[in-house]
Amino acid sequence: MVLKFYYDFISQPCRSLYILLKLTNTPFQAYPVNLLKGEQLSEDFKEKCSKFQKVPVIHDGNFRLTESVSILRYLAREYSIDDHWYPKESKEQARIDEFLEWQHLNLRLNCLTFFRTTWILPLKTGVHPTEEKVSGDKKALLKSLTDFDQLFLGDGLFIHGNQISYSDIHAACEIEQPKFGGYDPREDYPRIKSWLDNVEKACNPYYAEAHEFLNKVAKEIEDT
Amino acid sequence: MVLKFYYDFISQPCRSLYILLKLTNTPFQAYPVNLLKGEQLSEDFKEKCSKFQKVPVIHDGNFRLTESVSILRYLAREYSIDDHWYPKESKEQARIDEFLEWQHLNLRLNCLTFFRTTWILPLKTGVHPTEEKVSGDKKALLKSLTDFDQLFLGDGLFIHGNQISYSDIHAACEIEQPKFGGYDPREDYPRIKSWLDNVEKACNPYYAEAHEFLNKVAKEIEDT
Repeated sequence: MVLKFYYDFISQPCRSLYILLKLTNTPFQAYPVNLLKGEQLSEDFKEKCSKFQKVPVIHDGNFRLTESVSILRYLAREYSIDDHWYPKESKEQARIDEFLEWQHLNLRLNCLTFFRTTWILPLKTGVHPTEEKVSGDKKALLKSLTDFDQLFLGDGLFIHGNQISYSDIHAACEIEQPKFGGYDPREDYPRIKSWLDNVEKACNPYYAEAHEFLNKVAKEIEDT
Repeated sequence: MVLKFYYDFISQPCRSLYILLKLTNTPFQAYPVNLLKGEQLSEDFKEKCSKFQKVPVIHDGNFRLTESVSILRYLAREYSIDDHWYPKESKEQARIDEFLEWQHLNLRLNCLTFFRTTWILPLKTGVHPTEEKVSGDKKALLKSLTDFDQLFLGDGLFIHGNQISYSDIHAACEIEQPKFGGYDPREDYPRIKSWLDNVEKACNPYYAEAHEFLNKVAKEIEDT
């Protein structure tokens, strides 16, 4: 039975898992879920897809799983995923785990908060945030970007050296988000810019495909 | 070379890893770090212990690792940890991973924010939070507790059935925190109360030992 993947490209962990699935030639059926329309909040979704009422979700036969990092780890055990994406060697795996655990309350929290404040909420409600709110959220975002730059980017092409791993896809999809709210980290962080270019190049055409929706909406907003 | 463990009992992930290390009879040398005094912020700590400048940290020979969840996974691979704490079976492991990934931006974020607002900041600065701030933080905390209760607690004694796992220790150490700031989830959530009793019983005497410092400071504050 083929793996079922429920996703919305507006969601960073959905984009990163989608890119991984495509790059690793993992067979799957894609089921789009419209988060802006609240499809995940229906009783039907809760019963038939996931009690967590969010995406990404996978169904592997009768087994349902949420949380992108736990899905990645499950896929690495159960499917044919090249080792460099999530190495089996214990210390190398621990380095990736360290990043994937660190990012939740740092990059993830602060990129998402800024993205929500400056992009999602105005799109959904038509109400724009106060300058004070944007400025506070941006300050926290810059702290996380500086920490990411200093703690995780070194001399290699990617986070963990010269081979790409899931950490890179996960982090890049996160760091792409603030630009839709008016701040592109490439402007202030040359090392992040160069690393993002490497990740994009290594992940295309799927990187472009996963970000197409966001780019399209951003352009529509710019044109109005 | 024996495992080195850097910790402060004021930190939830330090308490939960300490309890795991003791319950699994993993040999380690304990190195206390005083977070309230800012010992982790020194250049000496940064150079000799961890560039992340926080705890918990382990040194396994020359290998340094932060982030409690990545440390747990590393210990489960490298040390003799009974399988029920973090099962090798793929789907069982995925269920624990799902909880451990979920908790970061839910239980962890909201218990910690409430604990910081109501306990750590007044302790460090002498300044008490506004009622509005406490009320906002409590609302987010209650949402996380309700989600935890409904999504993760079932008919079993523990989160993943009738056997205790690392999820239980990690979650319990988190849910103990708000009471030091004046709100004990046991009051409103009978299922959480009953589950906490089970975890405490299964983890004593180390559960009591890890919470002794917090209980002592809480009593001192109460008595003044």
